[in-house]
Amino acid sequence: MTSQAPVDFYFEFSSPYGYIASQLAEDFENRIGRELRWRPFLLGPVFKLTGQAPLVEVPMKGEYSKRDFLRSARMHEVPYRHPAKFPIGTVAALRAFYWVSDRDPAQARKLASALYKAFFVDGIDIGAPQAVIDIAKDVGIDAAALAAALDDPALKERAKKEVEAAIAAGVFGSPFFIADGEPFWGVDRMPMLEKWIRTGGW
Amino acid sequence: MTSQAPVDFYFEFSSPYGYIASQLAEDFENRIGRELRWRPFLLGPVFKLTGQAPLVEVPMKGEYSKRDFLRSARMHEVPYRHPAKFPIGTVAALRAFYWVSDRDPAQARKLASALYKAFFVDGIDIGAPQAVIDIAKDVGIDAAALAAALDDPALKERAKKEVEAAIAAGVFGSPFFIADGEPFWGVDRMPMLEKWIRTGGW
Repeated sequence: MTSQAPVDFYFEFSSPYGYIASQLAEDFENRIGRELRWRPFLLGPVFKLTGQAPLVEVPMKGEYSKRDFLRSARMHEVPYRHPAKFPIGTVAALRAFYWVSDRDPAQARKLASALYKAFFVDGIDIGAPQAVIDIAKDVGIDAAALAAALDDPALKERAKKEVEAAIAAGVFGSPFFIADGEPFWGVDRMPMLEKWIRTGGW
Repeated sequence: MTSQAPVDFYFEFSSPYGYIASQLAEDFENRIGRELRWRPFLLGPVFKLTGQAPLVEVPMKGEYSKRDFLRSARMHEVPYRHPAKFPIGTVAALRAFYWVSDRDPAQARKLASALYKAFFVDGIDIGAPQAVIDIAKDVGIDAAALAAALDDPALKERAKKEVEAAIAAGVFGSPFFIADGEPFWGVDRMPMLEKWIRTGGW
């Protein structure tokens, strides 16, 4: 049985592997014949729950990771410049995404791609709300309305609920995919996810 | 330029992904045209250095991992039964391996495979030195000589130096491969390693 339900694609805006996955998303959707539902979340609250830390701050693993970000991007032919300030807080990006998503999901995906490009290619610190607003404006979003929304407690609550939902679904890293209840963690697990979908699992 | 130097294959005897990699080793060597040099180490001292913990003890990641051990084994068609006692200390297995390896490297590899099978298929607790000795005997190793060696401070020092060497080489997980100085962590990175070797890197 082949499901046509979208595959949830969880990612954190400060995650190099999430960015690489986002760049592979369209080809991947074409290959699996399913849509990816983009669902940004925050790794900070997850790390608090799991006692983990950002990759680059873990001894030994940090050095390996910095090398692997670049190597993985080159392998997938994805443009990548490691940001000078890294990792960053991405709560403004998260809130902006869901505000746009509630109005126009396709535009929210465009915004996410533009935010990722700004951070991982152009070296813009997207931790700053004004940077997020400027990037949103560039993709055709009403900047004044977004700026007002970013201060709205309702939007803060909306974004927080998404992070809680991700955690409740078992998401502990970025990228993270859930297809018909089956979880897959990591850009390097996309081949396994593809095989899972093609075969119906094993 | 293609190097003919062996590729270092680091693994911990209590690591499911290390076990799966060991089962894929022979086909992998044939495909890459290079030998794997089996180098067991201990994750315990690494976790102390990196502040990490065994996968199954990490909240959220632990549940995912237990599911993924089984799923990964099935995907690779590797027999796997998750051990009732897990993880275990594997210092006796480590010492036995290097004692045999100094005498007959091919037999040491046979011993490693037999230890892995005992733990991940037959459910034998290979943390016990007597279990290691019994398994060694089954693959044709002099059990009495090995039993005596396991209490020898020289062998303890020999095995300790291997763990230190792995850490000095940057090894922080299992399996871990180093090919011509390039590190690859995880059984799911074997395709990347294969591509790296085929192409000479990128």
